Amino acid sequence: MPILIEETAPRDGLQNEKDLLTLSEKIRLVEDLVDCGLPRIQVGSFVNPRAVPQMADTEAVFQGLRKKPGVIYRALVLNEKGLERAASCGVRDVAVFVSASETHSRKNSGCETAEALKRACDVVRQAKSQGLSVQAGVMNAFGCRFEGTVPEQRVLSLAASLVDAGADELCLADTSGLANPLQMEKIVAEALRNFPIPLGLHLHDTFGFGLANVYAAWKLGVSRFDGACGGLGGCPFIPGAPGNIPTEDLAHLFHAMGLPTGIDLEKLTAVRRRLESRLKRILPGRYGRSV
Amino acid sequence: MPILIEETAPRDGLQNEKDLLTLSEKIRLVEDLVDCGLPRIQVGSFVNPRAVPQMADTEAVFQGLRKKPGVIYRALVLNEKGLERAASCGVRDVAVFVSASETHSRKNSGCETAEALKRACDVVRQAKSQGLSVQAGVMNAFGCRFEGTVPEQRVLSLAASLVDAGADELCLADTSGLANPLQMEKIVAEALRNFPIPLGLHLHDTFGFGLANVYAAWKLGVSRFDGACGGLGGCPFIPGAPGNIPTEDLAHLFHAMGLPTGIDLEKLTAVRRRLESRLKRILPGRYGRSV
Repeated sequence: MPILIEETAPRDGLQNEKDLLTLSEKIRLVEDLVDCGLPRIQVGSFVNPRAVPQMADTEAVFQGLRKKPGVIYRALVLNEKGLERAASCGVRDVAVFVSASETHSRKNSGCETAEALKRACDVVRQAKSQGLSVQAGVMNAFGCRFEGTVPEQRVLSLAASLVDAGADELCLADTSGLANPLQMEKIVAEALRNFPIPLGLHLHDTFGFGLANVYAAWKLGVSRFDGACGGLGGCPFIPGAPGNIPTEDLAHLFHAMGLPTGIDLEKLTAVRRRLESRLKRILPGRYGRSV
Repeated sequence: MPILIEETAPRDGLQNEKDLLTLSEKIRLVEDLVDCGLPRIQVGSFVNPRAVPQMADTEAVFQGLRKKPGVIYRALVLNEKGLERAASCGVRDVAVFVSASETHSRKNSGCETAEALKRACDVVRQAKSQGLSVQAGVMNAFGCRFEGTVPEQRVLSLAASLVDAGADELCLADTSGLANPLQMEKIVAEALRNFPIPLGLHLHDTFGFGLANVYAAWKLGVSRFDGACGGLGGCPFIPGAPGNIPTEDLAHLFHAMGLPTGIDLEKLTAVRRRLESRLKRILPGRYGRSV
């Protein structure tokens, strides 16, 4: 399967920044990332703007974007209200996530996992009935910063409900950045065996195991991975949560192994440099620094 | 096989620092690392002190060390003169390396690869005749910053000569930090098939692929890896060469997968903090930062 990288900096990246980008800066970031060859962009989320003020203008970002045909511009929603907001500005691709950790679920979704799952399945069904494509996923699928180990069966059971509700694509998220490659192999093998829809991974890079986890999953047949330019990101509801795998390093790993991603690494490095300049700090991405 | 981590910060780490540590600082660093549970330490090298002034006092470091029984205190030597210096201060474990890249060989060893190999094989034989243990290795085994691709057959042929000369242990070094995990699997599989002595890997982390390379090699059966506390290091003869894999992250990867290394990560993190304070910069190692 060809490698498919989804860029999450405008959503998962910016939601964790104290410094709010302006509407035009956000639109430029998304357009720049598309210009780097990224086939899928997480543009923003339709969540409570009091809880995540960084995402308050997601409607305006979607409305202001020049869209390139064939590119997926995805929005994250948590419930039917979020889905309504997404539909109102022409979003065609949504993502909906449930946390496998009760503590994280209460912080992230304001309710326990069972209720969050019910809402998420409603979103999946509603979105499908409106003809949208839906990525559904499980957060903290590899461990939780609050709760520690997360039982694999719990993750698989949540995923099964989301798949049964009609999701087009499943995503397992290492929201706390705690996965190791052996664990990755175990859960991925189960997911690939159990679910008939494509599996993607959203991995954070707390300990530098991110690309080892990618490699372990890719060897088993996973070809869809999220990244964030520069390694931006983190969960606003997990203090100290680490950034995503840097998209440039993720793409470079595949390029080095002879597998194309369609991403122009020189352009993407230039986007990272602009982000670093705007956010006034060095980001973790490696590509283009020491060569 | 149990995981065996060799700490290279006092040698590969410090040789690349502008700021020279004093003799007592070097001795303390080695003793601190042993106190972290590291079973093998590369203490220093016996090379031309004009070319690598950081290693000029290696005799004195060896003489001043309080040695702990069972720990390997290794010295790098390039030729018989280096071996004589090592023997003169009671070194029992040496390493000798040949570069698979002609350009790097001339810069690093002052001669072409064929001549460097002859000298290295002489060192192996001489050291064995003196009852020392010898790790012999190939530098730039996965690519060269100057020459690009390094043919796999060249690497395997150099390794074969070193093994035939009587080395106790083979080491393949990604001196330029260019390896990717697929390439790693290919070369490691060949090396494991061809050579009857233990195989170790010395990996640098230019692009963040280091732990992915470790994981790929470990899956094939490699259990010996070098690291440097904090991710120190680089080759003085390769401008911009990256640091080693941080020992704390390497050990943490194995601990996370349930495999003991004997290393106390809290103590090792404290050593990194002291190095950061002494060298006045943040080092790349991740463990102990965001948890």
